[in-house]
Amino acid sequence: MLKTQAVRPARLEMMAAIETRLSGFLAAERERWAAVDPRCAVPVDAVAGLVAAGGKRWRPAFCVSGFLAAGGPEAETETLLDAAAAIELVHAAALIHDDVLDDSPLRRGAPTVHTTHIATHAGAGWLGESRRYGEGTAILAGDLAMVYAGRLTAGLPDVARPVWDEMLTEIQIGQYLDMAVAAECVVDPAVSRWVAVCKSGRYSIHRPLLLGAAIAGRPQLATQFAEYGEALGEAFQLRDDLIDTFGDSAATGKPVGSDLAQHKMTLLLAMACGRDDRLRALVAEQEWDTEAIRLRLVDGGAREEIERRIGELVRWAREAIAQAGLDPAWQAELTEMATEVAYRNR
Amino acid sequence: MLKTQAVRPARLEMMAAIETRLSGFLAAERERWAAVDPRCAVPVDAVAGLVAAGGKRWRPAFCVSGFLAAGGPEAETETLLDAAAAIELVHAAALIHDDVLDDSPLRRGAPTVHTTHIATHAGAGWLGESRRYGEGTAILAGDLAMVYAGRLTAGLPDVARPVWDEMLTEIQIGQYLDMAVAAECVVDPAVSRWVAVCKSGRYSIHRPLLLGAAIAGRPQLATQFAEYGEALGEAFQLRDDLIDTFGDSAATGKPVGSDLAQHKMTLLLAMACGRDDRLRALVAEQEWDTEAIRLRLVDGGAREEIERRIGELVRWAREAIAQAGLDPAWQAELTEMATEVAYRNR
Repeated sequence: MLKTQAVRPARLEMMAAIETRLSGFLAAERERWAAVDPRCAVPVDAVAGLVAAGGKRWRPAFCVSGFLAAGGPEAETETLLDAAAAIELVHAAALIHDDVLDDSPLRRGAPTVHTTHIATHAGAGWLGESRRYGEGTAILAGDLAMVYAGRLTAGLPDVARPVWDEMLTEIQIGQYLDMAVAAECVVDPAVSRWVAVCKSGRYSIHRPLLLGAAIAGRPQLATQFAEYGEALGEAFQLRDDLIDTFGDSAATGKPVGSDLAQHKMTLLLAMACGRDDRLRALVAEQEWDTEAIRLRLVDGGAREEIERRIGELVRWAREAIAQAGLDPAWQAELTEMATEVAYRNR
Repeated sequence: MLKTQAVRPARLEMMAAIETRLSGFLAAERERWAAVDPRCAVPVDAVAGLVAAGGKRWRPAFCVSGFLAAGGPEAETETLLDAAAAIELVHAAALIHDDVLDDSPLRRGAPTVHTTHIATHAGAGWLGESRRYGEGTAILAGDLAMVYAGRLTAGLPDVARPVWDEMLTEIQIGQYLDMAVAAECVVDPAVSRWVAVCKSGRYSIHRPLLLGAAIAGRPQLATQFAEYGEALGEAFQLRDDLIDTFGDSAATGKPVGSDLAQHKMTLLLAMACGRDDRLRALVAEQEWDTEAIRLRLVDGGAREEIERRIGELVRWAREAIAQAGLDPAWQAELTEMATEVAYRNR
């Protein structure tokens, strides 16, 4: 714990620098475009509003930790800060578009981008369909966030580029597969696991960590970081599923229960179905009785089982990081971060 | 004309190489993701289908011309081909998202991405709303095309990066402003001109041309290319507006008349309103009588006036390029391209 205290300030200092960078970049863009026409500021504000509304910043945190744990040199700090800020903008883009795909009303405790702009359009009595305008605004705001992320990663070193490219491609493909298996009601734990790994796990922890190590000039840490990241990514996703199934909207700042309402074959549900015939029968129904499924997840023992699985994954992550030959202070820090990720409540 | 014949083969050879690159890149992605799950190929196929369906390839053509006219060295050819292919992917992304914003049914003679996938969802009787699934597929396919464009431009030289970044930012802001002024029924020629310049003109001609020159290592051509590109970009947009207002859907492969149907204050309409009180009165109505507007554009002389304006813009473009100090063969080629752009019929 003492050792952790030795490195956490360095990490938090960089996290603060990332916030400054994000808000400074977006404020400059806002000023520039508002001068052309006040309307031009709308998509910039949509992105800036979501970024300012909070979020847990796991992705920048793991990017920074990967860099610092790998002994990233001072000279590369600017590149790292830009890349970490860019990851948060990619995340903002993914959330804005995902909320359209799910028609989700709430994000980070505030109305989602498309919801806000549907209401603006309807309230002003503008021409055309409010939904198309509001969702159109969200599409363009998400696109803009992606463009900004691209701008911030222009200086990525060659060795980090494949990590970045792979992450971005996986996010889109994973999102599509997630939507498609929900629409087709696919009940296949292997597919659900792949979606969870690809869409959330890798992009939340594994890839940001590798990106940081690559920018630090130590891509050879990839193997050890991959084991840690894959295990923790699965734990991250299982906790996400547990929060959506059993959590409290007031704490999460987004709706809970939406996975079940949308027939999402989450990793949680896929794993639970694999060991519980009665649950599988409930999920095979055309209409889902979400309350019955929720109860069965508890009564059938799946919830406890998933908690045990999370515990096991955290243990694997800790063991992997223990073998990475890192500075002991960084080993302690990444171990503590594993616990924070796996046992968060929002 | 003889001189043009000297350089056109070199340009067409590079255009063919860009097609090979695009189809090869997308085929490799398709193969890779289809192996994970056949569904993963859906967004890749959506992008590849649009790219394969044709299009006029003006943007890659101007990028290649900017490079070759600037004497781009052999060593930079690979970077150029990647960048030109990337521009076409950015265009594909913009079209896929734009067609959702406009709910456009047809593009390049085929159903648009969202229309196709709305029909697939409805036909298969999948869960959830068909519109959300179909538009969601288009959102993710467009996002994927943007990611692919980013991958292909990873090797852009530093001097070309600002051109690329500026182009991408302008597209999104321009698209949003276009949608917003239509919703708010803004009748302001200055705003319409800015949208046209930003959203279409610059990104269709000016920026690709500059990007090519920058990759060739001659960013100092920017001033001369800018004059040519700005003038020709306006002509490009005015022709676009004329085709949408008076064109034939069978020739364009996309719906015509949609600008008026959506109350779009196009550059054509904004300029025409500036000189015709009766037209302005028609446009001030809450409901647009599109046939009356179309007739008035002819009878009030605006259509002829716009043709004259296009002629003037082409002359300016030719004069600008004549003063750029280019190889005479390239001066002739860019002069001919100006005529082709300004007098195309689709």
